[in-house]
Amino acid sequence: MRVLGIDCGTERTGYGVIDSDGRAHGIVAAGTIRTSPRDPLPVRLAGIARGLREVLAEHTPEEAAVEEVFHSVNAKSALKLAHVRGVALLLIAEAGLPCAEYSPLSVKQSVVGFGRAEKEQVQFMVRGILGPSAPVKEPDACDALAVALCHAMRRVWAKVAAS
Amino acid sequence: MRVLGIDCGTERTGYGVIDSDGRAHGIVAAGTIRTSPRDPLPVRLAGIARGLREVLAEHTPEEAAVEEVFHSVNAKSALKLAHVRGVALLLIAEAGLPCAEYSPLSVKQSVVGFGRAEKEQVQFMVRGILGPSAPVKEPDACDALAVALCHAMRRVWAKVAAS
Repeated sequence: MRVLGIDCGTERTGYGVIDSDGRAHGIVAAGTIRTSPRDPLPVRLAGIARGLREVLAEHTPEEAAVEEVFHSVNAKSALKLAHVRGVALLLIAEAGLPCAEYSPLSVKQSVVGFGRAEKEQVQFMVRGILGPSAPVKEPDACDALAVALCHAMRRVWAKVAAS
Repeated sequence: MRVLGIDCGTERTGYGVIDSDGRAHGIVAAGTIRTSPRDPLPVRLAGIARGLREVLAEHTPEEAAVEEVFHSVNAKSALKLAHVRGVALLLIAEAGLPCAEYSPLSVKQSVVGFGRAEKEQVQFMVRGILGPSAPVKEPDACDALAVALCHAMRRVWAKVAAS
């Protein structure tokens, strides 16, 4: 199964594509779509959409996963983020992919083993699972890979639980 | 000048297209794009995008205007709304239209004359300005027309102020 994980952000949106049979996971692609803070929001959203469409066309994932958005301490940032997330969900739906959503807590729990893990621990585990080609120095791409891994792992657990 | 106004919502997104020379305003089209609460958010966003693309293609507006979104009392609704708004801003940018944003206060101030106007007063004024074909019984379409009118009026005022 090929999974696309997306880590939404107005300035940097990370993406990560992995192939997974549920036990072994391999990295297909990962990167960061950047936008200029000088551009108005509609132009930035169009740039993010262009980047995500390229990823979808080039790597043809079968399923997608994104992080849930929270009414965080900074309500203004959460609202901006939700605009980007709207664009990501639209493109996922238009590509015909099923889309799963996970809380940041679930992602950390799946990838590191506990929900309060630090960012560095997530990066360490992503590299441990996917190997040295995982771009741990690109935090947004790495977070996107973590979301994709969370989805791949949970799908297997769900199957095991159901069997 | 042909202006598209959009009133974003997850269940009902209103749109209104007007022709305006700044003084006289005529209605071109107005309506409501509805989505089913039973569908997941990505599917609903795709439905809204489909509807807005049809409006853009059929009525070829030259400029667009949307309401600003606020960290309202209900943070969860504001976040959902921001997803729809992200999709609307994306389509406006992809159609190559300049996009203006107005607070609900500015819209009421422009159309009714004071910012704390009731919904019914806005509908009354929209019909007064655009004539009996304005769909005042469709509140979302009517709100979208009000946003379009606000933009058309403010552009002229800005010109007058600058001359």
